[in-house]
Amino acid sequence: MAPRIHVGPEPDDRFTAAVEEGGATPAEDPQSAEAIVWLSGDPAGLVEVLHPGVRWVQLSSAGVEQWLGAGAIDAERRWTSAAGAYGETVADHALALALAGRRRLHECARRSTWDRAVEGRPLFGCTVAVVGAGAIGQALIRLLEPWRCRIVAVTRSGRDVPGADVCLAASDVEKVWPEADVVVLAAPATGATRHLVGAAELERFKSEAVLVNVARGSLIDTDALAGALAAGRLGGAALDVTDPEPLPDDHPLWSEPRALITPHVANTEDIRLRALADFTRENVARFARGEELRGLVDVDRGY
Amino acid sequence: MAPRIHVGPEPDDRFTAAVEEGGATPAEDPQSAEAIVWLSGDPAGLVEVLHPGVRWVQLSSAGVEQWLGAGAIDAERRWTSAAGAYGETVADHALALALAGRRRLHECARRSTWDRAVEGRPLFGCTVAVVGAGAIGQALIRLLEPWRCRIVAVTRSGRDVPGADVCLAASDVEKVWPEADVVVLAAPATGATRHLVGAAELERFKSEAVLVNVARGSLIDTDALAGALAAGRLGGAALDVTDPEPLPDDHPLWSEPRALITPHVANTEDIRLRALADFTRENVARFARGEELRGLVDVDRGY
Repeated sequence: MAPRIHVGPEPDDRFTAAVEEGGATPAEDPQSAEAIVWLSGDPAGLVEVLHPGVRWVQLSSAGVEQWLGAGAIDAERRWTSAAGAYGETVADHALALALAGRRRLHECARRSTWDRAVEGRPLFGCTVAVVGAGAIGQALIRLLEPWRCRIVAVTRSGRDVPGADVCLAASDVEKVWPEADVVVLAAPATGATRHLVGAAELERFKSEAVLVNVARGSLIDTDALAGALAAGRLGGAALDVTDPEPLPDDHPLWSEPRALITPHVANTEDIRLRALADFTRENVARFARGEELRGLVDVDRGY
Repeated sequence: MAPRIHVGPEPDDRFTAAVEEGGATPAEDPQSAEAIVWLSGDPAGLVEVLHPGVRWVQLSSAGVEQWLGAGAIDAERRWTSAAGAYGETVADHALALALAGRRRLHECARRSTWDRAVEGRPLFGCTVAVVGAGAIGQALIRLLEPWRCRIVAVTRSGRDVPGADVCLAASDVEKVWPEADVVVLAAPATGATRHLVGAAELERFKSEAVLVNVARGSLIDTDALAGALAAGRLGGAALDVTDPEPLPDDHPLWSEPRALITPHVANTEDIRLRALADFTRENVARFARGEELRGLVDVDRGY
């Protein structure tokens, strides 16, 4: 029999549809539900409707610190976060930017005459540096798999990253600059990553390298980047995040031919909700079939 | 011992390097070679240097009609075409265009102010129609694999296409228009495909659909497309080929916000040569290891 799953705290057509499409029955009354999809970040509201019959709770955020902090997550049932739901949508944008940079699509877009001087290059066989290998970086590496790229993954510890050909610790990050055809920044903004790419680093980039930033603007020294592009270095820069952000109208990057700027739209509210609905549908299907769920929270490890 | 391989008719550093990187020894004198990489389309010149010791010939074109027609291809040795070498580079451009269309990168490129109204959509989970499943279409389907798209492949016969979720015959192509989020045209230009996408077809497209053309301009009725875009239909059109081609400077598509035009650069001479060198290196490595070669010509079947 199809399991009964409640969507709360408010009814939501999109998530009710995801429950149905996943092969379960939406339950208006949480007391009759075996599982709950909880779209609010408020632990207190959830605790009110939880009962011993609930065997699984799907949360809507990637991080669950506030849930663990509130003691809301117990060992009586399975809890899943949305970790993994959002990495793919940002990785999709990152690869769109990388391909646009390689193929010089932004330069084509600004022309109004047939001029084959805008010839670009395929991504096949490139060396791609993925700086930061969390949910976004790992999703990007999966997307890149058919391109037979040489993937250099940079993480704080230099740990093994699935699908990467080379794994470097952050302390060795300078090794990637002269090697990479494409550098994708997908690391958290911290004191250690501030101006990770500045003038000295840009000098070491390959002359045709494409720099992509889908992390935070502060990872790049924007003035240094504008200067490098103006001086004819780099193949291009494709940025979804900037510093300052929003980028002011009079900023030189807007008129730099090899810069492509998207206004922090890799993962908008609408994209996030759709990605969460897709993720929920898949987890509901797994729950209905008795399979392992994605994004299981490990209460002991705290994530 | 490393096999000796001759590159002709003229010496070529790039292909000599590919021979060495593949683990073989470049042979200046064809008489001492066990294999020949032939970069010219002229069968007569090759016949002059062939000798019984040559066990493999790598040709530089995807089609081998002229070689078969000239009777140059015999059963005394293996012959490989470059079929498969070029499909990937065009597929790379096709996916770059599709992602740009979904993410509205061409609209972003034309702005010089931070305006989040240009929000796009990820490609994840889309329905992608691949119209034509030759080397390009098949390579595109491989690239799309990690995106969990629903792939509808259209071929003349409706044959099974690896990786496609639905395979349709050309006679059923109209079924794809209302279903596809992205339509990629990768079919040969023939009488039957001329104006495959015209006004009536465009009316049936989804309102957010992205139309990509990496085949030939004649597959689209350009006036009908310009009209549909001007009328606010479609999410966008991203075209590497146009009709007429080159697209005249005063053509309305140049100023259509949702059109992105690249000047037939998916597979330029430079890209082709690099792709052929990569393909050659891989085949040389396979030859040196005694493995099956890619792109083997089947003399009896004629391709």
